[in-house]
Amino acid sequence: MNHNHYDDPVFFAKYGEMSRSKLGLAGAGEWQEFRKLLPAFDGKEVLDLGCGYGWHCKYAADRGASRVLGVDLSEKMLAVAQEKNPHPAVEYRRGAMEELSFPDGSFDVVLSSLAFHYIEDFPALVRNICAWLKPGGDFVFSVEHPVFTAAGSQDWYYGPDGKPLHFPVDNYYYEGRREAVFLGEKITKYHRTLSGYWKALTENGFTVVDLVEPQPPEEMMDLPGMRDEMRRPMMLLVGAKKGPVKKLGPE
Amino acid sequence: MNHNHYDDPVFFAKYGEMSRSKLGLAGAGEWQEFRKLLPAFDGKEVLDLGCGYGWHCKYAADRGASRVLGVDLSEKMLAVAQEKNPHPAVEYRRGAMEELSFPDGSFDVVLSSLAFHYIEDFPALVRNICAWLKPGGDFVFSVEHPVFTAAGSQDWYYGPDGKPLHFPVDNYYYEGRREAVFLGEKITKYHRTLSGYWKALTENGFTVVDLVEPQPPEEMMDLPGMRDEMRRPMMLLVGAKKGPVKKLGPE
Repeated sequence: MNHNHYDDPVFFAKYGEMSRSKLGLAGAGEWQEFRKLLPAFDGKEVLDLGCGYGWHCKYAADRGASRVLGVDLSEKMLAVAQEKNPHPAVEYRRGAMEELSFPDGSFDVVLSSLAFHYIEDFPALVRNICAWLKPGGDFVFSVEHPVFTAAGSQDWYYGPDGKPLHFPVDNYYYEGRREAVFLGEKITKYHRTLSGYWKALTENGFTVVDLVEPQPPEEMMDLPGMRDEMRRPMMLLVGAKKGPVKKLGPE
Repeated sequence: MNHNHYDDPVFFAKYGEMSRSKLGLAGAGEWQEFRKLLPAFDGKEVLDLGCGYGWHCKYAADRGASRVLGVDLSEKMLAVAQEKNPHPAVEYRRGAMEELSFPDGSFDVVLSSLAFHYIEDFPALVRNICAWLKPGGDFVFSVEHPVFTAAGSQDWYYGPDGKPLHFPVDNYYYEGRREAVFLGEKITKYHRTLSGYWKALTENGFTVVDLVEPQPPEEMMDLPGMRDEMRRPMMLLVGAKKGPVKKLGPE
């Protein structure tokens, strides 16, 4: 991530107004689907990459994780995490996930929620994560959907009446840098295709076991703009297990 | 499939003009990627659902398949298959794939190329395919990409200069019937999300081992319109193996 927007006071304040910031997991539209992908945490050592306010760290610790390490680039985010989601088993640490280093087999579970679209070299990170995990370890993450990141603007295409006409897809196969506007700030993100995510995982030691495009939950459907979220996929949830992929061909 | 367009003389003639019809596998932009997903065919019993002109049947038989059954709804397509791609090991049979019935474990490999978007109840078909396959059997298919089928028109959104502005996505999470125009004819297709394909496979006996969004090959890039195919994903290739999915959680 080239610039740490989350430590920018204006951006940080706006982020704090989002439903997921105020309400935590209950305010995140994808949480009910994401939780289904999570393994049992009892006695597990857990790493959360881009932990933000620490909601997932606290969740894992509350469910019996023996140790949870939450890493985030933003000092301000970690201060909120420490205040809102402290737990004796959770350590919050400042750092860029691309620069982390751990002994092989340090963790049972690696989590990440909506942070990997800030990462330029995803395959390199996946190689590291695979090494950090014990054999059979779980890697569960959410990212912005390739449909959502492809064109770059991350905005609807509007009709003359000012209503969303459709969602534009463009430059799909050109992976890499995109400049999007998020909470009024220009942010650099990285677009990857679905194949791109798949290859990064399967060529670097993982078997993909879950792939979910979460729909807006029924009970949030009346929130502003939520009904339009049935018209485009915005997120992709992935569950993977450290271990070889069974290849096609003769047994 | 509610109406058999491929036996309509006008549609059939237009289909015959497509590069993939005239040149066979070499004229299909996705073939170089699709072939990588195919298992070894030596001594295998193979079923091809929606075999069309029979290119894939012939390919499997040429590579040693002991028996290949190609099924298609269209009499005209099968007549061309018999003429262009005959082989002693290949039988072409007319039928709707939803209505087929075979003893359990009849095949080692089930193939399908660009035919499942005509199928209304995909999970039911997947259940059948799983039963027809031997344990460890291979299921390899291509479909139109969910991005391509979502809005329904399957056409670019054009700017005032008449050039493609972007590709529109709409109604993504509303799976089901779409009316698209293909070769000038109104055709009914069925849109499914990526999650929809994934669930149909993983909940009905398959492990997904390959997931590929094929890009236009470099040597075809100068064909009319091909460069624009870098801007949207049009196809999805899937390789799956009959067998259980490893679930996340404690071993």
